[in-house]
Amino acid sequence: MQRYFVAADQFGEAEVRITGEDAHHALRVMRTKAGDKLIVSDGAGRTALVCVREAQSEVVADVVEWLGGKSEPKWNITIAQSLPKGDKMELVVQKGTEIGAFAFAPFQSERMIVQYDGKKEAKRIERWGKIAKEAAEQSHRSRIPEIGAVRTWRELLALIGSVDLALLCYEREGHAAHGRGIAKAVRQWNASRQHADAPPPNVLLIVGPEGGFTEREAEEAEAAGALLVGLGNRILRTETAGIVGLTCLLYESGEMEGE
Amino acid sequence: MQRYFVAADQFGEAEVRITGEDAHHALRVMRTKAGDKLIVSDGAGRTALVCVREAQSEVVADVVEWLGGKSEPKWNITIAQSLPKGDKMELVVQKGTEIGAFAFAPFQSERMIVQYDGKKEAKRIERWGKIAKEAAEQSHRSRIPEIGAVRTWRELLALIGSVDLALLCYEREGHAAHGRGIAKAVRQWNASRQHADAPPPNVLLIVGPEGGFTEREAEEAEAAGALLVGLGNRILRTETAGIVGLTCLLYESGEMEGE
Repeated sequence: MQRYFVAADQFGEAEVRITGEDAHHALRVMRTKAGDKLIVSDGAGRTALVCVREAQSEVVADVVEWLGGKSEPKWNITIAQSLPKGDKMELVVQKGTEIGAFAFAPFQSERMIVQYDGKKEAKRIERWGKIAKEAAEQSHRSRIPEIGAVRTWRELLALIGSVDLALLCYEREGHAAHGRGIAKAVRQWNASRQHADAPPPNVLLIVGPEGGFTEREAEEAEAAGALLVGLGNRILRTETAGIVGLTCLLYESGEMEGE
Repeated sequence: MQRYFVAADQFGEAEVRITGEDAHHALRVMRTKAGDKLIVSDGAGRTALVCVREAQSEVVADVVEWLGGKSEPKWNITIAQSLPKGDKMELVVQKGTEIGAFAFAPFQSERMIVQYDGKKEAKRIERWGKIAKEAAEQSHRSRIPEIGAVRTWRELLALIGSVDLALLCYEREGHAAHGRGIAKAVRQWNASRQHADAPPPNVLLIVGPEGGFTEREAEEAEAAGALLVGLGNRILRTETAGIVGLTCLLYESGEMEGE
């Protein structure tokens, strides 16, 4: 069944309104007409099965049934990615959204290869947001991951202090620093936290640029509260590390157990 | 340190010979000279630190030290991928190699969107092999994953019968068939098998095309011995499923624990 995300203010208690590009897609591309059923989300967790009542210049539809939020993970995992070269960030956003990232936090770090260009930032964030929306629709999520503004390294350190668990992927010649793999770190943290009725924990997965983190950056992140972890005995490209780390976190959260 | 893969017959007990394109890369691009150290693998598990003795039209180097095989996973995991559209198979091979796949087994299935073209097969397999070699070098593996010839569905069923564990990723509207997630299936299998001194188990991870598997295909795979498993509550694109499933298998094998 076709899925659309609509802004929260177009999503009432009993009816939704699909406008703009999505209305064009529904009416012209999918030839939606009165009586058709669709699935609509507000991008923030509410999802409903709706039945189309009007299909003129925009689509108005009645809520038939509210759908459970099973498509969202139990942990809110944000991928903090040091800006990579070329279009790699697009791959991180697309795959991360499919797999189940809560948000993306691009940031600057010392060994970054790309030249950060503040003027282009708004445009790039808009593009990544569009990719996140499409991937969220395709993967049947009820939430569109948010793309944060590009943070400085100092701002990232502040973010580390505000989450329940921060992991910094750090490898030297294939060996995890401190010898601790992500599985061990996350299992230990998960065993120690309060589970009953706890709200979803906020987890930050921090990935370095092509050139990796400097030793000083790793030390600063650790001092701010991050755990340094490895992702196996191979060297992953920067755009692969977030995908692998996110999957490991979801695995440990119980997301891959099934029903 | 620069890494090269050489054919097994150029890899002696005490010296290795780097020829062809790799010699060109070492001599012209990296300006390698006598006395330089390199890391060389035979692509089948042997890796050595070597010291260059001759750097003329080819490179001849003496073995300084054999390096342990820590960079290869404990389980031999083959990604069986129904041929996807466009260049998605390249992403599967590149990312799968980095993460730690043992081999790739492309195959044909009913709802495949691409038209299989036997004439182009040799060329495509050669290209995928090149991508696997580059990704193996970059990720510091001591083995280049093999790319199998494109199998028919019948041949894939036969392959299922020959491995220790076969998993078929199968989802309907976001719910794993039978309600069993990959974590549950793999943990159960892992708990029941003989660990002590056992050779690495052969695991087959089977991923469908964009249109998914038909119900009949799922039944046939199950009858041949495959377990149907889900990969979380979201719908993954075909090129994402293998990457996620591979990471889950490595996680369960203990690969993400660290030292």
